[in-house]
Amino acid sequence: MGRCVLLFLLLGFLMSGVAIPLPPALRALSNVRLSTSFTSLPSGDMEHSIRYVQQKVDHFGFKTDRTFKQRYLIADKHWKRDGGSILFYTGNEGDIVWICNNTGFMWDVAEELKAMLVFAEHRYYGKSLPFGANSFKDSKHMNFLTSEQALADFAQLIRHLKRTNPGADNQPVIAVGGSYGGMLAAWLRMKYPHMVVGALAASAPIWQFEDIVPCGVFMKIVTTDFRKNDPDCSESIRRSWDAMNRFSRTGAGLRWLSEALQLCTPLTSSQDVQHLKDWISETWVNLAVVDYPYEANFLQPLPAWPVKEACQYLKNPGVSDTQLLQNIFQALNVYYNYSGQAICLNMSETSTSSMGHLSWSYQACTEMVVPFCSNGFDDMFEPHTWDLKKFSDDCFNLWGVKPRPSWITTMYGGKNINSHTNIIFSNGDLDPWSGGGVTKNITDTLVAITIREAAHHLDLRANNAFDPMSVQLARSLEVKYMKQWIRDFYSSLRKKH
Amino acid sequence: MGRCVLLFLLLGFLMSGVAIPLPPALRALSNVRLSTSFTSLPSGDMEHSIRYVQQKVDHFGFKTDRTFKQRYLIADKHWKRDGGSILFYTGNEGDIVWICNNTGFMWDVAEELKAMLVFAEHRYYGKSLPFGANSFKDSKHMNFLTSEQALADFAQLIRHLKRTNPGADNQPVIAVGGSYGGMLAAWLRMKYPHMVVGALAASAPIWQFEDIVPCGVFMKIVTTDFRKNDPDCSESIRRSWDAMNRFSRTGAGLRWLSEALQLCTPLTSSQDVQHLKDWISETWVNLAVVDYPYEANFLQPLPAWPVKEACQYLKNPGVSDTQLLQNIFQALNVYYNYSGQAICLNMSETSTSSMGHLSWSYQACTEMVVPFCSNGFDDMFEPHTWDLKKFSDDCFNLWGVKPRPSWITTMYGGKNINSHTNIIFSNGDLDPWSGGGVTKNITDTLVAITIREAAHHLDLRANNAFDPMSVQLARSLEVKYMKQWIRDFYSSLRKKH
Repeated sequence: MGRCVLLFLLLGFLMSGVAIPLPPALRALSNVRLSTSFTSLPSGDMEHSIRYVQQKVDHFGFKTDRTFKQRYLIADKHWKRDGGSILFYTGNEGDIVWICNNTGFMWDVAEELKAMLVFAEHRYYGKSLPFGANSFKDSKHMNFLTSEQALADFAQLIRHLKRTNPGADNQPVIAVGGSYGGMLAAWLRMKYPHMVVGALAASAPIWQFEDIVPCGVFMKIVTTDFRKNDPDCSESIRRSWDAMNRFSRTGAGLRWLSEALQLCTPLTSSQDVQHLKDWISETWVNLAVVDYPYEANFLQPLPAWPVKEACQYLKNPGVSDTQLLQNIFQALNVYYNYSGQAICLNMSETSTSSMGHLSWSYQACTEMVVPFCSNGFDDMFEPHTWDLKKFSDDCFNLWGVKPRPSWITTMYGGKNINSHTNIIFSNGDLDPWSGGGVTKNITDTLVAITIREAAHHLDLRANNAFDPMSVQLARSLEVKYMKQWIRDFYSSLRKKH
Repeated sequence: MGRCVLLFLLLGFLMSGVAIPLPPALRALSNVRLSTSFTSLPSGDMEHSIRYVQQKVDHFGFKTDRTFKQRYLIADKHWKRDGGSILFYTGNEGDIVWICNNTGFMWDVAEELKAMLVFAEHRYYGKSLPFGANSFKDSKHMNFLTSEQALADFAQLIRHLKRTNPGADNQPVIAVGGSYGGMLAAWLRMKYPHMVVGALAASAPIWQFEDIVPCGVFMKIVTTDFRKNDPDCSESIRRSWDAMNRFSRTGAGLRWLSEALQLCTPLTSSQDVQHLKDWISETWVNLAVVDYPYEANFLQPLPAWPVKEACQYLKNPGVSDTQLLQNIFQALNVYYNYSGQAICLNMSETSTSSMGHLSWSYQACTEMVVPFCSNGFDDMFEPHTWDLKKFSDDCFNLWGVKPRPSWITTMYGGKNINSHTNIIFSNGDLDPWSGGGVTKNITDTLVAITIREAAHHLDLRANNAFDPMSVQLARSLEVKYMKQWIRDFYSSLRKKH
């Protein structure tokens, strides 16, 4: 959920030689915004209220007592004061309405769990801006954008919900989140176990930090997704980079490339070609991330199984450079022009109205330092090493901050988390982010669910007729665990009285 | 350990009408410093190295990348690289050398646990000053003094120790602390269970916040300590306040009081008398807190069982006002003049060289908001209600900060901590702070040890021939738990390999 955003930005760092913000990153985020506008507001069964809660801008310092309004959505149609529960979505890097609209799972299980649904917006995203329009001005204003502050917001909001909703006080809260939101759900349970009885952490790559997993694992899974559809597909992509490089040597080559790919803005330099390759890499990544079994509109309006759709144009890696790149264009169109409305492909579009990309770029430059690399052998991308020094310099130039790549491990424990309890880590086997996720049970109560044929947090999406059996079973199992946590909560409550 | 300092400051707030810093509070802290100078540096078996580690001034924000040097003491005489352990003292509100010198328990058990001993100084105390001499200048410089920052320092230091001491990497760390340091030990285990396998939280009043325990419990226990020695003793003290009030009505009365109590600075106003009563209250509190069974020098050089010593002068509450107050003077002398060197009692002495009092006053004004009250019936003190509004105003006047009295409960869980494991909460039954402590087992691994005839963290002090059997048994039990944690650590390590 919006995790792709993270990816874009990180890949932007990794693969291009320019300072942040990178055009591909920004474009990627503008896509996110675009998709939001495509999605209708919840209606009928998804009816909710929009509320706000006052939060301290700084939970961890007292110099300022300034507060801001955090937005949250609340739906209580199926909530029962007697024996009910609270499902609490730990918002991630996007507008909470967009997130809510893409988390049908919670709506689907509300009745069964007698649950109040709450979707909490992450500070510095959507309408939850600590300094209003100035929030993204500089490192001084961005200083309160950390996962720790976000978790503290969630903890305070839970206290607020329990105080202000009669009957909620003695009910179990379950954290739910996908992607970065899944990390936050897991971390909320780890750091505030008195606030939530358990967490469903969907597609949460909590181990994609430092050297816990190899930096190449992500691109390797992307490649596998394409190769599984057709080995010629990944091979076509692998060969396309050199083809682009060959065209980039002359003005005529650049002109041909610009026309063949129907770019809105023609390429004029080798730097432009680097951007082009970053942009195309990110497109393949994105297709893998949202490779859902039905038509969907998460980052873009897309057909069912979009990787397969793209691969149908990439069946022959042995063709000439011109033919290969014309095929690549057709494949890109699956992602950028499923609606058939685009008159050209815009790789340099930037977003001015959307501010979320700035926030994630800051988070990636501070705490959320995710090392990425590719080697061209295990994956279909051009080789890129992970260069922390360069990454750090870029961050300093952009934000005046230096990343602390080992902090997340110090704070949240890395692989050493077995003393915690009641966390479900779910991962789709198609999801590139599963490489940094928990895919094996750690203990009886820290459990992993791997979902075959599933991309990024498919389990959090609404039930769909085209869902594979695997995700239906995963959702049943998730509900089973949640019911167990709820029962345990009420049983220990009864013991107290 | 130094917790009395906390008490002084809080009582200062509670009982006097003036802004902070209060003379009694400052005097109390100057006593602490005095006692430090009395204590010789560890020698022989207590040999250690003094080291420093670079810490981020702000672990939770990236605007500044500034660092400071945190001091820690390390002793590895008994440490074994093979099968050893690390005992990590989570420093509290005082100079770490003073704390180390008063934590003989760790030295006594080092050999048995093959343990490296580490004593980490708390930021803003001793020599661990984030901004050097400017650290206490204003709320801007004090902004990084919180328990969360201190815990993050400890976590970073543990990572540093494991990186820089070959053999330490695969060893279990056990947190140990007394008083506020005991809270930090417990909280370190709760928040960073990947860093420490367990915690010994001695005399840690983790529940003395908000309304978790009645605000009067502390003064009630102080009173019980005196009454148990002799009901006439507590009754004498209870009656002494009115006697002082009666003397305060005239200049002659003030002069008599000043002379009878041999005050260094004569009383001249009713406000001075309020200070006098605060100062005397704090003295009784202090005697109860350090009511050790042998001569000791923690806050002051004191005889064995100092409450009993003081009470021998307070056997007859029915005497005249003048006789009663002369008796009070004798009792005060037990605390202030055991050495026989004092030529007058100095209730307004303030400390300029000691800076720790400022830090604790700031902590009490921000996170560590401990409500105190007395009613004169259940205790021997004048009635005082807990006035949060006034407290908050005083804090704002002094520091420009507003206390957040419910934050500690939000952060650390209040009474709802049963999902954590491996914490020993030890409390002495004479210790007024036991009222806010965990004195009953919560689960099999969150255990309470109540120590009869013991004052404030007696168990952390060195073995002594006059120790009651209760504290000897408590220490054995503590070691037993620690050995179990160490065994569990190595057994799960073996399973991994």
